[in-house]
Amino acid sequence: MLTVNAYGATSVAEPLVPMTVDRRDVGPHDVLIEIAYCGICHSDIHFARGEFGDIPTPLVPGHEIVGTVTEVGTEVTKHAVGDRVGVGCMADSCRECANCLKGEEQYCLKGHTLVFGSVGRDGRVTQGGYSTHIVVTEDFVLRIPDGLPLDSTAPLLCAGITTYSPLHHWGAGPGKKVAVVGLGGLGHLAVKIAKAMGAEVTVLSQSLKKQEDGLRLGADHYYATGDPATFENLAGSFDIILNTISAKIDVDAYLSLLALDGALINLGAPSEPLPVNVPSLFANRRSYAGSLFGGIKETQEMLDFCAAHGIGAEIELVPAEKINEAFDRVLSSDVRYRFVVDSSSLA
Amino acid sequence: MLTVNAYGATSVAEPLVPMTVDRRDVGPHDVLIEIAYCGICHSDIHFARGEFGDIPTPLVPGHEIVGTVTEVGTEVTKHAVGDRVGVGCMADSCRECANCLKGEEQYCLKGHTLVFGSVGRDGRVTQGGYSTHIVVTEDFVLRIPDGLPLDSTAPLLCAGITTYSPLHHWGAGPGKKVAVVGLGGLGHLAVKIAKAMGAEVTVLSQSLKKQEDGLRLGADHYYATGDPATFENLAGSFDIILNTISAKIDVDAYLSLLALDGALINLGAPSEPLPVNVPSLFANRRSYAGSLFGGIKETQEMLDFCAAHGIGAEIELVPAEKINEAFDRVLSSDVRYRFVVDSSSLA
Repeated sequence: MLTVNAYGATSVAEPLVPMTVDRRDVGPHDVLIEIAYCGICHSDIHFARGEFGDIPTPLVPGHEIVGTVTEVGTEVTKHAVGDRVGVGCMADSCRECANCLKGEEQYCLKGHTLVFGSVGRDGRVTQGGYSTHIVVTEDFVLRIPDGLPLDSTAPLLCAGITTYSPLHHWGAGPGKKVAVVGLGGLGHLAVKIAKAMGAEVTVLSQSLKKQEDGLRLGADHYYATGDPATFENLAGSFDIILNTISAKIDVDAYLSLLALDGALINLGAPSEPLPVNVPSLFANRRSYAGSLFGGIKETQEMLDFCAAHGIGAEIELVPAEKINEAFDRVLSSDVRYRFVVDSSSLA
Repeated sequence: MLTVNAYGATSVAEPLVPMTVDRRDVGPHDVLIEIAYCGICHSDIHFARGEFGDIPTPLVPGHEIVGTVTEVGTEVTKHAVGDRVGVGCMADSCRECANCLKGEEQYCLKGHTLVFGSVGRDGRVTQGGYSTHIVVTEDFVLRIPDGLPLDSTAPLLCAGITTYSPLHHWGAGPGKKVAVVGLGGLGHLAVKIAKAMGAEVTVLSQSLKKQEDGLRLGADHYYATGDPATFENLAGSFDIILNTISAKIDVDAYLSLLALDGALINLGAPSEPLPVNVPSLFANRRSYAGSLFGGIKETQEMLDFCAAHGIGAEIELVPAEKINEAFDRVLSSDVRYRFVVDSSSLA
């Protein structure tokens, strides 16, 4: 058992505080990682505040983890001491259901093990990456390709794969028109990745406030959804719309922007059901879909793709003691575009 | 100008009555068809009663038309006098938009010309198949393959293609599990077609009343949606769910029946928006989609497929004077499975 420093929630009503957590002994297939950085994702906040349901406390959030291997189990073959590695949303899955066997562990039919807040295979609650070390089974540890800086790579482990996976699945590439709704942590990576895939990329943001940024990040076009003319002018335009915002949207209005066989894909979920007018789906044979992060194999592909294209997140590095402040700033959209916790501040 | 006998609506509030309509002179690219049979589709009733919006009157419904060519225009190359032919939902389209150029005229961006109730290229309101003759441009006339009896083929022109198209588009075939919601005019053809494509077919019907029929038509399984255990037992089962009913459904409940990358496809539309709980889409990366009948090329493929597999509708033949009665029986689901008007009764 290794007792390590961390930053976590003691209750859903209180700010995060310094604490320690116990990491299991390194088993035959485990890897011990010294965490260098961990991104702050909107869902960390939802979890920590109990907005996704009851949480076990104490709970250490954080699921965009990068660091260096410092110890490996006797049977480990995929990673070695000194390797630069990452861990994302999942720490394990059943590995035997139809979806796991297809490499889509994010859709594990028995429920994957989240990197924090799940009950792991060892029967203990998993604790996440706002911490100095973590122990993870080797199959759920990713290799960070040479050339990717660790700090800006951390957000790729969730925000990166969450946008890469649907873009890849729905065929973003040359000749395809992709719209990204919302230019935040997910959205700014969606723009970079879709552009690198060869698609024509449009940002649909509430206002034109971040237009200059969006174009700099690679978007070909930028429109304000607050302007009703946007929906008129862009009707029937897109093959893929990635909706990165969790707030309630007018689904029919966004569906109307899809070309033949286009898909509107939600990556976040509002807390209430959304009304869909079925004829909106008939025109152009449209689909309304959802997508969760990605499988392990695809996450490695995404990291290799980002290395090949020099893609990282735009980040603001913060020490652990500023996590609560960062949470507040995320909630008020005051970050361009991802906070990353410098784990050396926890040492 | 050819004045021909028909059966149509003089107002949305009145039953259909005998009338005559004028068919345009046969132009260079036109085909004059002597109608043998015309199916009665649920949407004929909606249109005739103004439930899809205002209609021009007098209006002759009917869009599942089969018959024999009796005259062709000077430039016609695709059809000859004596040929057995069919006409479905569309009588024309713009032929130059991106969707028409892809052979998906049903999604014509300028709006296709419906076989009745649209303003045609000649500036006149189109009149449908409850009639003795119709004039249609040759590109929108289908060839009825040898071996298909005309009467039971009529419903293929709408109900057949409306189910064939999404089954084909979403990849129904060996190894795929298809559920058909509702065993009516569309549903019974969906079962036959999906089975002939090689899929494992399940009927989901309100009750088990038509179970024997469903199994006879080719379904492998039959479940009552009125039994809550159905939704528990079949969770995550299907690759494709074709929803053939227009009534309001619990979208989340049907989405829960989809396996990885499964699609729930609505072929009918309720009059009010349906609530969708976005997390229902996340699990198994599900899609909620809509589909309209099919393009001309695909409709011909469907007819050839049905000929190869001996597929026709199960029909009840009625004379024109029983159309109003048939309408009432369709609305009370008292037909197995499609009424077809015998046009000789109009001569």
